Amino acid sequence: MNLDNFFKAKSIAIIGVSRNPAKIGHVLFRNLIDADYKGKVYPVNPELNSLFNIKAYKSISDIPGKVELAVIAVPAELVLRVVKECNEKHIKDILIITAGFREIGNKVSEDELKEYLELHDIRCIGVNCLGVVDFHKKVDLIFLPRSRLKRPEAGNISFVTQSGALGSAILDLCAANGYKFSKFISYGNATIVDESDILEYLLKDKSTKVICLYLEGVKDGEKFFSTLKKVARKKPVIVMKGGISEEGKTATKSHTGSLAGKSEVYFGIFKQANAIIADSLEQMLYYASTFSNVNKIRGNKIQIITNGGGYGIITTDNVIAVGNLILARMNEKIKNKLKKEINNNLVSFGNPLDLIGDADTERYRKSLDACVKDNNIDAIILIVLYQTPLITTDIIEVISGYRRLGKPILVVSTGGNFTRVLRDALVDEGVCTFEFPEHAVKALSELVRYYDIE
Amino acid sequence: MNLDNFFKAKSIAIIGVSRNPAKIGHVLFRNLIDADYKGKVYPVNPELNSLFNIKAYKSISDIPGKVELAVIAVPAELVLRVVKECNEKHIKDILIITAGFREIGNKVSEDELKEYLELHDIRCIGVNCLGVVDFHKKVDLIFLPRSRLKRPEAGNISFVTQSGALGSAILDLCAANGYKFSKFISYGNATIVDESDILEYLLKDKSTKVICLYLEGVKDGEKFFSTLKKVARKKPVIVMKGGISEEGKTATKSHTGSLAGKSEVYFGIFKQANAIIADSLEQMLYYASTFSNVNKIRGNKIQIITNGGGYGIITTDNVIAVGNLILARMNEKIKNKLKKEINNNLVSFGNPLDLIGDADTERYRKSLDACVKDNNIDAIILIVLYQTPLITTDIIEVISGYRRLGKPILVVSTGGNFTRVLRDALVDEGVCTFEFPEHAVKALSELVRYYDIE
Repeated sequence: MNLDNFFKAKSIAIIGVSRNPAKIGHVLFRNLIDADYKGKVYPVNPELNSLFNIKAYKSISDIPGKVELAVIAVPAELVLRVVKECNEKHIKDILIITAGFREIGNKVSEDELKEYLELHDIRCIGVNCLGVVDFHKKVDLIFLPRSRLKRPEAGNISFVTQSGALGSAILDLCAANGYKFSKFISYGNATIVDESDILEYLLKDKSTKVICLYLEGVKDGEKFFSTLKKVARKKPVIVMKGGISEEGKTATKSHTGSLAGKSEVYFGIFKQANAIIADSLEQMLYYASTFSNVNKIRGNKIQIITNGGGYGIITTDNVIAVGNLILARMNEKIKNKLKKEINNNLVSFGNPLDLIGDADTERYRKSLDACVKDNNIDAIILIVLYQTPLITTDIIEVISGYRRLGKPILVVSTGGNFTRVLRDALVDEGVCTFEFPEHAVKALSELVRYYDIE
Repeated sequence: MNLDNFFKAKSIAIIGVSRNPAKIGHVLFRNLIDADYKGKVYPVNPELNSLFNIKAYKSISDIPGKVELAVIAVPAELVLRVVKECNEKHIKDILIITAGFREIGNKVSEDELKEYLELHDIRCIGVNCLGVVDFHKKVDLIFLPRSRLKRPEAGNISFVTQSGALGSAILDLCAANGYKFSKFISYGNATIVDESDILEYLLKDKSTKVICLYLEGVKDGEKFFSTLKKVARKKPVIVMKGGISEEGKTATKSHTGSLAGKSEVYFGIFKQANAIIADSLEQMLYYASTFSNVNKIRGNKIQIITNGGGYGIITTDNVIAVGNLILARMNEKIKNKLKKEINNNLVSFGNPLDLIGDADTERYRKSLDACVKDNNIDAIILIVLYQTPLITTDIIEVISGYRRLGKPILVVSTGGNFTRVLRDALVDEGVCTFEFPEHAVKALSELVRYYDIE
């Protein structure tokens, strides 16, 4: 299904734009303007002449010229009527934000709407959704204020979510953490366009490298399975399932009106399709950042470099615990050369390579240089605890420079503001960073698992 | 063992204070001054007359009057000589920062030192440690600069760590997260004072409510077991073990020179003693914050309140998955009253209680009021996604007000800067906050497990 107009439309009508800043239609309109969207925007409301100096229209039929995408934010009982007007205007792509359908037991209205949409070949995202964003094209069609929900910069992660609020919280956090996004799609009740259609579309979307999917239930299991299998073979799909427990399933009914189905079936499908299963939102996020920034991993031999002994030890424990990683053994020649260069009898030249508390940037540089060259090492977990005074800020350039050579370098650093500033700088350079070592190890483990199967 | 002088000494000599700001002795001295320590400080260095307008002494014997605590930061080969001078000055409490002993194979020097310390009944923390802090008494004796490693405010968490760097990173993060600390003790090689002595001391310490312990290995297993059992019965002890895998154990030898021992034995001891086992540093932190702020939990019936359906669902899944919690069923009378008060047919009055996306502060207030009164509910997981515009900042007062009534309220909110500011305000009010729902659920699960046994 071609969903281009939801992300690249050159003309958008927003139906239900109010002068009241608390209303959804108002916020949608304002966000699109504030996002610096370059296409034409038509606010529609029978009682409005203009808003922010942009001419408003009494009805859709009053709009001159073509409208590629309609966004509907009117009360549920008016939705079908507005959809019909859109159809008369030959609009075949409609985003319906409005809630109050199947998820509250109003199945009849949704069925009637669905029938009309299908009959007239209208592509519809929603109902009961937060909306969509294309961060590259600056199409910002989610109804939460940009002051409350910061938008991430443009990048290669696309996030597909059945739950709008969950999506909004994650998007906001991702913006703060410097993750970069291609598209955000909250699809709500999936009245017409469902998760499979979106996955299929994102497979072909060049600006999407990694797909995150939060899912409660799917209607067409076979379609989903075959689509997921196809997509996950080409692009990493990180999936999180809501409604695993019986109690959770009950809750999904009043949420997106979906039947959560048997969890075992879902997890069976995920595994067979080589999807990346996230056990938690936190895990989905660090998987996304890792797959977004790392291109490929050659093998499973991991070298740990640290300036904190305890961190090296717990990272070692984690590497062993995940099962599919092994500790690298440095090439003896390279190791001996490094020993000479560092020339410090307190440094422990094993794995972990413990550079100890007085390590400076130069000691890190020498170590990275050795490990990047060493073919016995497939990936590096680089622990940098910035609390020690000898690490200077030019370590940012050192790390990001070596990362560009291709071998995955995952950086772990824990701390307060100073640490965060340096971590943000690394994130800007496309380096994967982690607050805790266990996250870096889990991410590496999934990288190895995902790419081994390819 | 009375360790009072390490935290409450009225006079402290720092031996090895240099004019060079990069040197450990210099940083120790400066930190103590900058912390606004109220006692007497004597910097000692044969080549120094004064530093920062404070008179320096050529040797310990030159110091007039009593010295309650000596801090040694001189090269390893000089340590024993300095210790002897301290003993001649009748100093019985010595913190030895210096590294270069058993952890790098220099067992002979450490044995010799230990023998002398034991013979003269000297209490010694270290060698090879980061130092100690008492946040109430403003005794700041760790050698990392306060600009790099922010210190937490005074509170009730005490953190005992065998690894200095690990401790420093965590301390810095805790300061940024608003956690409040009583004492920090990095004990390194445990030449004299070991983890058991410190636990025993903290048991009696009135300003310590929760103890965190990062451990690699103990020398005297029986002493540790009996101490841990005694302490954990009165105060929550959150313990994390480094060196679980064989490979991790190998790394502990070159770190703190400890034999990590059989992991199963350790975990057996932890469980029998009713310690709280943290699987990761992240978990140790949110356990600490929870036990620091929650006094008691009456039972395991949990009510989830949310403004995001997806969050309610995954929290439900988590509650069921941990095994020892159950979903509360609201008292019908209270529920019906709440239904009338909220009067919104989109709100879902189950568990989760889904207040939906347009929930305002008042809707939260009504729900909290009902749930706090309801005896069918033992604890509340309150999900507040601040991205929606109707939640006003006075929700801080609402939540912290109801929390004071005693029933545990664990707040989950995910997002960027706006979320963080509101979360920090709640933390200041002593409310437990979490970035992800699974953490709140795990914390509740441990609360129930820990207090059930009592």
